[in-house]
Amino acid sequence: MKKFVYSFNEGSKNMWELLGGKGANLAEMTRIGLPVPFGFTVTTEACSRYFADGGRLSPEIADEILAKMEEVENVTGKKFADAEDPLLVSVRSGSVFSMPGMMDTVLNLGLNDETADGLAARTGNERFAYDSYRRFIQMYGRLVMNIPKTEFDAVFHAQKQRANVRFDVELQAADLRNVVKAYKEIVKRFTGEDLPQDPKTQLIEAVSAVFRSWNNERAVLYRRLNKISDQLGTAVNVQAMVFGNTGDTSCTGVAFTRNPATGEDELFGEFLINAQGEDVVAGIRTPDPISQMEEVFPEAYHEFVRIADVLEKHYKDVQDMEFTEEDGRLHMLQTRPAKRTAVSAVKTAVDMAAEGLISREEAVCRIDAEQIDQLLHPKFKDEAEAAAEVLAKGLPASPGAASGRICFSAAEAEKLAKAGIKTILVRQETSPDDLAGMVAAEGILTARGGMTSHAAVVARGMGKCCVAGCGQITIDEDEKKLWINREVFGEDDDLSLNGSKGTVYRGRIGTVAPDVFPDFETILSWSDDLRTLKVRGNADNAEEAAQALQFGAEGIGLCRTEHMFLAEERLPVIRQMIMAETEEERKKALDRLLPYQKADFKELYRIMEDKPVTVRLLDPPLHEFLPQTEEDFREMAEQTGLSESRLRKICEEMEEFNPMLGHRGCRLAVTYPQIVRMQVQALMEAAIEISREKNIEIKPEIMIPLVGMEKEFADVKRTVTEMAEACKVDHGAEMEYLVGTMIEVPRAALTAGRLAAEADFFSFGTNDLTQMTFGLSRDDTGDLIKEYVDKGILEEDPFQTIDREGVGVLMETAVQAGRKNRANLKLGICGEHGGDPRSIEFFHRIGLQYVSCSPFRIPIARIAAAQAAIHSRKEE
Amino acid sequence: MKKFVYSFNEGSKNMWELLGGKGANLAEMTRIGLPVPFGFTVTTEACSRYFADGGRLSPEIADEILAKMEEVENVTGKKFADAEDPLLVSVRSGSVFSMPGMMDTVLNLGLNDETADGLAARTGNERFAYDSYRRFIQMYGRLVMNIPKTEFDAVFHAQKQRANVRFDVELQAADLRNVVKAYKEIVKRFTGEDLPQDPKTQLIEAVSAVFRSWNNERAVLYRRLNKISDQLGTAVNVQAMVFGNTGDTSCTGVAFTRNPATGEDELFGEFLINAQGEDVVAGIRTPDPISQMEEVFPEAYHEFVRIADVLEKHYKDVQDMEFTEEDGRLHMLQTRPAKRTAVSAVKTAVDMAAEGLISREEAVCRIDAEQIDQLLHPKFKDEAEAAAEVLAKGLPASPGAASGRICFSAAEAEKLAKAGIKTILVRQETSPDDLAGMVAAEGILTARGGMTSHAAVVARGMGKCCVAGCGQITIDEDEKKLWINREVFGEDDDLSLNGSKGTVYRGRIGTVAPDVFPDFETILSWSDDLRTLKVRGNADNAEEAAQALQFGAEGIGLCRTEHMFLAEERLPVIRQMIMAETEEERKKALDRLLPYQKADFKELYRIMEDKPVTVRLLDPPLHEFLPQTEEDFREMAEQTGLSESRLRKICEEMEEFNPMLGHRGCRLAVTYPQIVRMQVQALMEAAIEISREKNIEIKPEIMIPLVGMEKEFADVKRTVTEMAEACKVDHGAEMEYLVGTMIEVPRAALTAGRLAAEADFFSFGTNDLTQMTFGLSRDDTGDLIKEYVDKGILEEDPFQTIDREGVGVLMETAVQAGRKNRANLKLGICGEHGGDPRSIEFFHRIGLQYVSCSPFRIPIARIAAAQAAIHSRKEE
Repeated sequence: MKKFVYSFNEGSKNMWELLGGKGANLAEMTRIGLPVPFGFTVTTEACSRYFADGGRLSPEIADEILAKMEEVENVTGKKFADAEDPLLVSVRSGSVFSMPGMMDTVLNLGLNDETADGLAARTGNERFAYDSYRRFIQMYGRLVMNIPKTEFDAVFHAQKQRANVRFDVELQAADLRNVVKAYKEIVKRFTGEDLPQDPKTQLIEAVSAVFRSWNNERAVLYRRLNKISDQLGTAVNVQAMVFGNTGDTSCTGVAFTRNPATGEDELFGEFLINAQGEDVVAGIRTPDPISQMEEVFPEAYHEFVRIADVLEKHYKDVQDMEFTEEDGRLHMLQTRPAKRTAVSAVKTAVDMAAEGLISREEAVCRIDAEQIDQLLHPKFKDEAEAAAEVLAKGLPASPGAASGRICFSAAEAEKLAKAGIKTILVRQETSPDDLAGMVAAEGILTARGGMTSHAAVVARGMGKCCVAGCGQITIDEDEKKLWINREVFGEDDDLSLNGSKGTVYRGRIGTVAPDVFPDFETILSWSDDLRTLKVRGNADNAEEAAQALQFGAEGIGLCRTEHMFLAEERLPVIRQMIMAETEEERKKALDRLLPYQKADFKELYRIMEDKPVTVRLLDPPLHEFLPQTEEDFREMAEQTGLSESRLRKICEEMEEFNPMLGHRGCRLAVTYPQIVRMQVQALMEAAIEISREKNIEIKPEIMIPLVGMEKEFADVKRTVTEMAEACKVDHGAEMEYLVGTMIEVPRAALTAGRLAAEADFFSFGTNDLTQMTFGLSRDDTGDLIKEYVDKGILEEDPFQTIDREGVGVLMETAVQAGRKNRANLKLGICGEHGGDPRSIEFFHRIGLQYVSCSPFRIPIARIAAAQAAIHSRKEE
Repeated sequence: MKKFVYSFNEGSKNMWELLGGKGANLAEMTRIGLPVPFGFTVTTEACSRYFADGGRLSPEIADEILAKMEEVENVTGKKFADAEDPLLVSVRSGSVFSMPGMMDTVLNLGLNDETADGLAARTGNERFAYDSYRRFIQMYGRLVMNIPKTEFDAVFHAQKQRANVRFDVELQAADLRNVVKAYKEIVKRFTGEDLPQDPKTQLIEAVSAVFRSWNNERAVLYRRLNKISDQLGTAVNVQAMVFGNTGDTSCTGVAFTRNPATGEDELFGEFLINAQGEDVVAGIRTPDPISQMEEVFPEAYHEFVRIADVLEKHYKDVQDMEFTEEDGRLHMLQTRPAKRTAVSAVKTAVDMAAEGLISREEAVCRIDAEQIDQLLHPKFKDEAEAAAEVLAKGLPASPGAASGRICFSAAEAEKLAKAGIKTILVRQETSPDDLAGMVAAEGILTARGGMTSHAAVVARGMGKCCVAGCGQITIDEDEKKLWINREVFGEDDDLSLNGSKGTVYRGRIGTVAPDVFPDFETILSWSDDLRTLKVRGNADNAEEAAQALQFGAEGIGLCRTEHMFLAEERLPVIRQMIMAETEEERKKALDRLLPYQKADFKELYRIMEDKPVTVRLLDPPLHEFLPQTEEDFREMAEQTGLSESRLRKICEEMEEFNPMLGHRGCRLAVTYPQIVRMQVQALMEAAIEISREKNIEIKPEIMIPLVGMEKEFADVKRTVTEMAEACKVDHGAEMEYLVGTMIEVPRAALTAGRLAAEADFFSFGTNDLTQMTFGLSRDDTGDLIKEYVDKGILEEDPFQTIDREGVGVLMETAVQAGRKNRANLKLGICGEHGGDPRSIEFFHRIGLQYVSCSPFRIPIARIAAAQAAIHSRKEE
């Protein structure tokens, strides 16, 4: 027969899947001789059985629990329901992954009218006995009977008023008897029945209630948010009570072996005299710092310091511990790995490696790569943010903190920035035309668009704070008005944004710069030693490239050339190119663009030198460059000599129903090979000149976007190589170069074998590949994806973390087919997923050679790549 | 050493890949003892070598050709370049697939100043010699030297005017000598050199030019239109000349063993006295019907009738033959399977099967399923046609009915077609240059040329309505004017043509669906016996369903429910549903839609009875139902009581950047389960009521669109089944029903195994699947796809014929994975490709159970399905 209940001396920390985290650690502490009150764990398998049996604890399991209780009675020498010296126990949930505050607890179980008096008599402490009893009824009432907390709180508060006291501890035994009496009446009123007096009934009901609580709303929400499977279930720990509330001779506390905020190697925690565990967490009274315990209970304190040291050394990680000191004796009630800030995580990992406690691999794996993002963006002062008024919530599209004046157009933001005024750019949704304004603004707020909308992607790329898809706001760009909850904001108002939370605040909030500290550098350099995946940055200009280098980029994986055309003096020229009615006109406009583009590339190569730079040919549909505002049209009409109405007609003709699936990417290159020729000439000449200037070897990588057919690639490749070879001849230069393709159209992945015959490299454009594989436009379905995640239809946003079952299958197929046909095929990825740790793990596994991500995510990628390498080495 | 040249007595019809169609059939006719002038074929492999060698005929091949010429000299007893009795030859292309009018021909090669006189002397017929010589120079000049036809025509025309004659044959020897002189001057002027006098040079140049012409523009276009591979290459046939232009004792002609327009079993063709082959085709004079030959050349005629019969029996197919009768002796110059109209194809196939000439399988395979489309095109409404004014009558060159605007050039027809304007192309006579315009026009009207003129042959081939040789009309192509009986018509006027009668009507005439005639029924019923793939129709309402049934549908594979909402009285209600601000308002609107939708389904079931009907849940994005015009908004404002500006705002908010990838399909069903409930209730109640009314068993098939994730499907399926079961309970009915998914998102195909665990059936939505797999919006990239096809990047439009390498791979993957997880999974396809013969072949091969297509393509699908079954049986 399956065993569903384990004594603490039957388990160990390795049994965490069966016993839950708390149970396994209680068993482990027992195993290594630490003072743990005796008890047992009802397993997670019992929880599964509970649900399999339709939400019913089977008689077999109940019997096993009660049998185990007898063992507890034997060990403690007390008896359940014994009126003279009653055995009391705590009943606490303990799931596989720590879910703090999520699951419920009952203390002092075993008390009833008789045993409460017995406890009072035996301890000579009636106050303690009734304090424990009222606590039991309240917790039991909530957990088992679903009685609202406010019911009990009201009674307790009234009693404090009647007794005219401020703190709980000031209530006397008689007061607490009154409370208990009133509590029992609440139970009767709510359930129609008396509080169960039989401790065994109490126990079985409490265990069942803990199991039940696995599916309560906040537990489900927490699991969803933290991506914990609903299938795991929780264990239940039943443990002999020890009491921190026997009087001023006792206390209870929680502490960390190191500072969880800063990482300092110091015992960090709090304790409360005459209290039970939940008082510390609930903030009933303000607890004292743990260090002060040394004065009050010196012996117990030194014992605790010793135990903390033992635990950290034993677990080789920062521990988060709960303890109770009862009349001079210390008892350990819990230990678990400490949740910590990114700063603390980095410092403790580096320190522990320096102390020899863990290896460098382990140190790197200790870091939550995603959390590292915190370290890379400016942030609000904590107190100031807490005090600010939240006006609305949108998507946390790009982390950081920003305050500034509301501004409704890119032009205005630029103007104000020049005048030294900080702005928040507020737009329905941004477009490439807003780019300069986005650079100029402190932060961006949009009403529409998801986590991968234009605003979000570009903002993350530039490390700019952005709150996107904020459905609560309404914008009238013409009237320059912003409605939030019926309140109107205008150009004179200030807003603040927290891009990590998605919050919009009224007014300005002070910020502090992110700390860049040596321990972080250390972790990064260890990561570099350990990883095999290279990390490149996505950078469209020299500035971003410099940023990428600073964060450790080994090259540029994606340089989008279209952004080079958006500068004020260039936009009219590219518009002329688009509007050209003859080949000659088009050529003329392109000739004018050439020097700009060449200068851009030269700057880029000056910074990147001989590091690889992948330049993508013009990608967006040409209509993105066309005039949109009245003023644009006026200007354009002046420049071209065409009438405004004619210009409008041309623009209308170029409009597309579904621009994402329209005339863009390599399709432009097929239709307008002149553009390709100009771009390739600019690139090759820049590379040749800088390689001579710096006496270095540059090997340009030219990337063709949106390829779906082998002949499409071949067609554009022919244009590219013809021009590249011509440049080499013209300049008498020897220069190798690569011509590769993006894999971002499903068909490219499906026909990758044939593409590899022509292409020198593949770079997966996972943004578009995800859009097309799912048939989901990220600009249009931000809300839908949120709805899907909330409903559990999607486990996570596939634009954040790669979808292994669909998109991932296409990628793996492409990698295998590609490499089969070309052994030395270079394989990388340049979509947003390149900066996502869980995606990086997948990219490592399928054998890509590099990831490329926005500069601010490069450190995250370096760590994630190291972790991926370590994990896969372990798996081998 | 490889053999590149075969005498006619070395080949046979089975060697068509090597010898081309013409060469193989000349060899075959020689083999079975028919009178064929001796000659040889230069193989298609020589053509490939020609291009492999960079467009140069290698000396080895040239030597082989000249060596073969000696054999021809021996057989004919004449000598090349012999001034006394010169050997003349024709040089004609002959590719693997017949490409009428596409490739070029040189007759009378071997003539020069000396041999022309020799020929005149020997035959005593100077006129004949110089008529032959001028023909040679003109054809050689065009083919080898690219001299424009107009140059020669101008000279010839001038000479006719000078001689004051109407017909070519009226020119005398002296006139023709002048023509030859002028022609040679043209050659000198254009090439800077004299016409080559050495017949061997002429021969080698001509062979090379034929090879070269394989890649001329119109040949490439023809191949593209007819999906013939560019790789095949052409062979060249060199054959001793026989002469139909020796005088009134000779003639030349073309004929079919059966009527290529009607299929009647009668010799059908034309002949011209004193002419060479191309005169018949070019429409220089109007030829006489072949039956009249019996009077003029009775012996030759009877010999020809006998040979025609031999050939048809030998080839077991209708033959298209060319012959020349020279001074009483009949010579066969060509035989090939006859191009025929769909009517003719059907009738001859059925007749030949009845005659025991071919089996039913062969009869079915004889039908070009795509061509059957001709029979299914609308024809004029009888009364409307009877009432229309007949302006003129020409030859019924290619059947069908067409109305459109008059258009005088191919370029104009193309331009108007792009703008969606239907045209009638009106030409003196068409030439290969007009091909693209003929494709673009609705119908073709020519003033000159017979039933076998270029216009007639090409129009029949493409199933385009054509009235040819309409002598009553006069055309001024430059002035863009058309005179009919002294009335002038211009570009603003409309005409209608009946190609089966040869009538030209004033204005436009309304059309109706065609009748299916008995022979066609026969072919369809044989097809039904032979096929395994079921054929369903796509029908959104009872009328379309009835049409589908009439064409033989075995069920409805796709009923789009959204069209049910577009009726005048319903649209306001669905708009209210969309605009609803509360659940209650939405419910109210849906309650009003329910009876409409239910009534629609009842009508549908009344017609389809117990045949399967797959109903798709609401698919398009809701904004498609919203107001668009000023008036719409005004109406809507009245109906809803909301202000127009508020309505506009709501509409704007619902706009999407890429609606195809937006909030539609099952995503609507997830967000608005109320809509699903209404639709399922309407469907189930309709099915229950009709099943009782008619006492039949109905098994509704409910299809969920745009699924990409298994949980998405599960979510909607839950809503569907809950409502379906509730309906069953409410109405005390037993009713089985299926819930299946469309496979139209690439991810659905990639995760089909898991989807099959939940779905009862898959229906491939190949339109969207193609769009997403290619990342191509067909609404935006029509021009691009054309450009890609023209450039050879795409072999064909993937929205017409399934892309086997990309989309097909996804489909096959899905079929295999789906069936593995659910053995009885129903598999079908309901995209446009369901009516495309080559796609149907693929669907049969991958194991689908049915295709569903638009009603008018059902007969095509039935035949194509039978052919697929026959072919795959053969392959086994």
